[in-house]
Amino acid sequence: MKLFYAPGACSLGIHILLEEIGKSFELVRLDLASGAQYKHDYTAINPKSKVPALVRDDGSLLTEWPAIAWYLAKTHPELGLLPEDLEGEVRTLELLDYMVATVHMRGFTRIFRPANFTPTNADEPAVAQTGRDVAATGFNLLSQALGAKAYLMGDYSIADAMLFCLEFWAVGRANISLPANLTAHLERMRARPAVQRALAAEGLT
Amino acid sequence: MKLFYAPGACSLGIHILLEEIGKSFELVRLDLASGAQYKHDYTAINPKSKVPALVRDDGSLLTEWPAIAWYLAKTHPELGLLPEDLEGEVRTLELLDYMVATVHMRGFTRIFRPANFTPTNADEPAVAQTGRDVAATGFNLLSQALGAKAYLMGDYSIADAMLFCLEFWAVGRANISLPANLTAHLERMRARPAVQRALAAEGLT
Repeated sequence: MKLFYAPGACSLGIHILLEEIGKSFELVRLDLASGAQYKHDYTAINPKSKVPALVRDDGSLLTEWPAIAWYLAKTHPELGLLPEDLEGEVRTLELLDYMVATVHMRGFTRIFRPANFTPTNADEPAVAQTGRDVAATGFNLLSQALGAKAYLMGDYSIADAMLFCLEFWAVGRANISLPANLTAHLERMRARPAVQRALAAEGLT
Repeated sequence: MKLFYAPGACSLGIHILLEEIGKSFELVRLDLASGAQYKHDYTAINPKSKVPALVRDDGSLLTEWPAIAWYLAKTHPELGLLPEDLEGEVRTLELLDYMVATVHMRGFTRIFRPANFTPTNADEPAVAQTGRDVAATGFNLLSQALGAKAYLMGDYSIADAMLFCLEFWAVGRANISLPANLTAHLERMRARPAVQRALAAEGLT
C-alpha cells in the first residue's frame, strides 16, 4: 500500500495505523506549502487535493480519514482496532466524524489556515479565534468521552489515532492547554512504538 | 425514537431514512434562526448545538449524520440501506464523509451562512463564492461516482439520502445547476413515498 501524506497533517493518524499493522508500505510526501496537492501529478491520482490518500495493493484509491481507517481496521481484525459490536462501531463513527468534520475542519483548519476562510488579512486573528473556540468545545466533549478510560473506546482503536492528531496539534502547534485526561492520553499514545516510528518517519521528533 | 431537526437542514436526510424504515417516531423542530440550538433546553440534550440528533428508544443520544445513518441501516438490515460487503461499506463511508464534511460543511455552509466564516459583512459574497467552488467540485466528483447507476452504491442506500440533501439545496436554495445524472437522481428520490412524506412533514412541498 502507498500512503500520500504531509508531515504532521491528519494523515499522521493513518500513518500510525499502518505502523500498528506493521506490514510494509510506501510513503509519498506531499509538500502542501508549495501547493503540490493542486498540481496535475497529484490531482490525477486524487482530485480532492487532500491527504491522507491510500493506494491499496490492487491499485485502487481510498480517501477520507474515517473510510481509510475503517478499511484498515476491518481488514486486520486480529489487531482489534475497532469494537466488534454495533454500538461500539456506531460510537466510534460518531467520534471520528466529530473529530474530523468539526474539531479538525472547523476548528484547527481555521487556526492553521485562516486565509482559507477570509479574503481580508486583518480578519485572520478573528477567524483563528473562532477556530480556537471550536477546538475548546471539542476538547471539552472529547475529554468527557474519554473519561477515566485509557482509550476512547476502552481498548485502543482507530479513534485514538485521530484524537492523537488533535492533541498533537493543540500542544505542539496551537498552544492550547488540554484537560488532564487528554494530556495523559497524548503521553500514552507517544509511548506506543508505532506512534514513535510514524513521528520519526515524518521528521516530527 | 425522537429526531431533532430543522426544516430543510441535513437532518432531512435522516428524516427520510426514518420514513423509509416506517416505524413511528417523534419529530422535534428546532428554530435555528432564533438560535434555539444554543439555548439550555437543547444544549442539555445535545451540547454540539447541531441537528440531526436522534434520541433512541433506550433514551441515549446519537449525533453525527454518518453515525446516525449507519445505526439506522444496521438495525434494519431487511431494508438493505447499506451494502453488505466490506468494500461497499467502506465506499459508502467515503461518500458520506465527503458529502458531509466537505460538500456540506465547507461548501453549502459557506453559501448559506457566510457570516459564520468572516466578521466583515463586505466579504460575505467572496466567502459564498468559495463555497460555490467547493460545491461545484463536489457535484463533479459525485456525478462521476453516480455514473449511469440509479443510486450511488447501485442499490438505494443511506448515501442517497445525503446526496438528496445536497441536490435539494443546489436546485431549491442556491441556484446551482446539477449534472444531468444528479438531476435524474434528485427526481428519482422525489418519487419515493418516504421522501415525499418527509418533505411534507417539514413543510417543504
